[in-house]
Amino acid sequence: MTREVSAINEFGQTDAISIPAERALTVYVDKRELVTLMTLGAQPELLVLGFLRNQRLVQSVQEVDSITVDWEVGAAAVKTRAGISDIEARTSKRVVTTGCGQGSVFGDLMADVDKLVLPQASLTQSQLYGIVNAIRLKESTYKSAGSVHGCALFRGEELLVFVEDVGRHNAIDTIAGWMWMQDAHTMSGEDKVFYTTGRLTSEMVIKSAQMGVPIVVSRSGITQMGHEVAQRLGLCTIGRATNKRFLCYSGAHRFCFQPELAGERLHATT
Amino acid sequence: MTREVSAINEFGQTDAISIPAERALTVYVDKRELVTLMTLGAQPELLVLGFLRNQRLVQSVQEVDSITVDWEVGAAAVKTRAGISDIEARTSKRVVTTGCGQGSVFGDLMADVDKLVLPQASLTQSQLYGIVNAIRLKESTYKSAGSVHGCALFRGEELLVFVEDVGRHNAIDTIAGWMWMQDAHTMSGEDKVFYTTGRLTSEMVIKSAQMGVPIVVSRSGITQMGHEVAQRLGLCTIGRATNKRFLCYSGAHRFCFQPELAGERLHATT
Repeated sequence: MTREVSAINEFGQTDAISIPAERALTVYVDKRELVTLMTLGAQPELLVLGFLRNQRLVQSVQEVDSITVDWEVGAAAVKTRAGISDIEARTSKRVVTTGCGQGSVFGDLMADVDKLVLPQASLTQSQLYGIVNAIRLKESTYKSAGSVHGCALFRGEELLVFVEDVGRHNAIDTIAGWMWMQDAHTMSGEDKVFYTTGRLTSEMVIKSAQMGVPIVVSRSGITQMGHEVAQRLGLCTIGRATNKRFLCYSGAHRFCFQPELAGERLHATT
Repeated sequence: MTREVSAINEFGQTDAISIPAERALTVYVDKRELVTLMTLGAQPELLVLGFLRNQRLVQSVQEVDSITVDWEVGAAAVKTRAGISDIEARTSKRVVTTGCGQGSVFGDLMADVDKLVLPQASLTQSQLYGIVNAIRLKESTYKSAGSVHGCALFRGEELLVFVEDVGRHNAIDTIAGWMWMQDAHTMSGEDKVFYTTGRLTSEMVIKSAQMGVPIVVSRSGITQMGHEVAQRLGLCTIGRATNKRFLCYSGAHRFCFQPELAGERLHATT
């Protein structure tokens, strides 16, 4: 997942360093070219499945017959069982959004948002600290090469899946694909928490909501649109989560504060 | 450029915090809807102009008659002098790339890259340190609200323009638009250095090259495609630039190393 390249440092010395791999993957749906994704390439089938899911081009995993990835030609061929109805119209409207990576969604960004009803769910401050610590221990490509975003799905503080990619939307899409490949009953979003290293943009919030996951944690901050959408949905957003610190921007009714775990105020704010 | 929202911290205390503004701006070219950009909204006319430039939809600023922004309806109306020929075909191919913000380019990402010839230019280590320091003093929205990317254009270590946006591609596009609005003679790229807080992706490298700017500096790292394109172009990429540290990934012939300025090796690597 990394490539070695040489670079010259501030002392004029040449070092071998690792950078993340990045490959172009062109997605064809029933032989029709849809999009080219730039990806680290770890789990391309799950990425493509999750991309179709998060773009709402397929409604269930059963609609997909097969996904065949051929890195020789950088192509992913998706075969659907019954075709995607009016795919032309549904992929014609473009929104260029804030997020890293897959910065474009087909169709109306806010379409159907108000129809989403999120399940009851809660997270404790203790579990949040467990999540932050689990991520700290996990990041592999990031540690060796930097320049990637990580996403993870948790049940409470139990890490279920962790994905890194050059674009954070690829990472979240891969998790959406992964969820569809698990047992449907255990993979409902209601007891899940979504973690992203990237900012809490509207697109990240919407994607999480579409997966039925009502709590999102990030080490970064939130954007205005992300904040607005999260408030509208009653989705719990927690940002700036590093060590013991964090900010809950929305959906605080889903979060169980345990300030006694936060340590000394004096220490925590320095 | 920021909004105040309330957030609850790890002690259960509600604080007022600032987050960056983010607005949807739908671009219409000769009354035809082209794209919706999510932006901080500081300089929307320059953003739209630079977007058209970097997407290579217009070849010179003279082709644009007017750009009228109406925030009431979130629309930018572009009037061209003679229309954009086969705009349908040129905007049909989509690539979802790694970059933050405007993660999508129309047309073939690599098209015309090999035709680009970059001017002679060089940067000294002393000037690089001046650039890093100028950026440190500059970031305003980032300091107050976080969650934005900054881009800047330098002549040597002289800061010419600095732009922040929720998406870094918006920031670079705004600079591209700004350059077109300056005197053409003084605004050639040959003595310019482009700075970005974001990663050195292929798209950032290509956009810099399209502006004729042969040196790009970032505080972040580089991706594989960014590295490949930069090498092909002979463009100088410098990443991980913080304080006295940096890595030159490509185009080292454009960089004048002054290792005596880097300080003590022992100190610098700790």
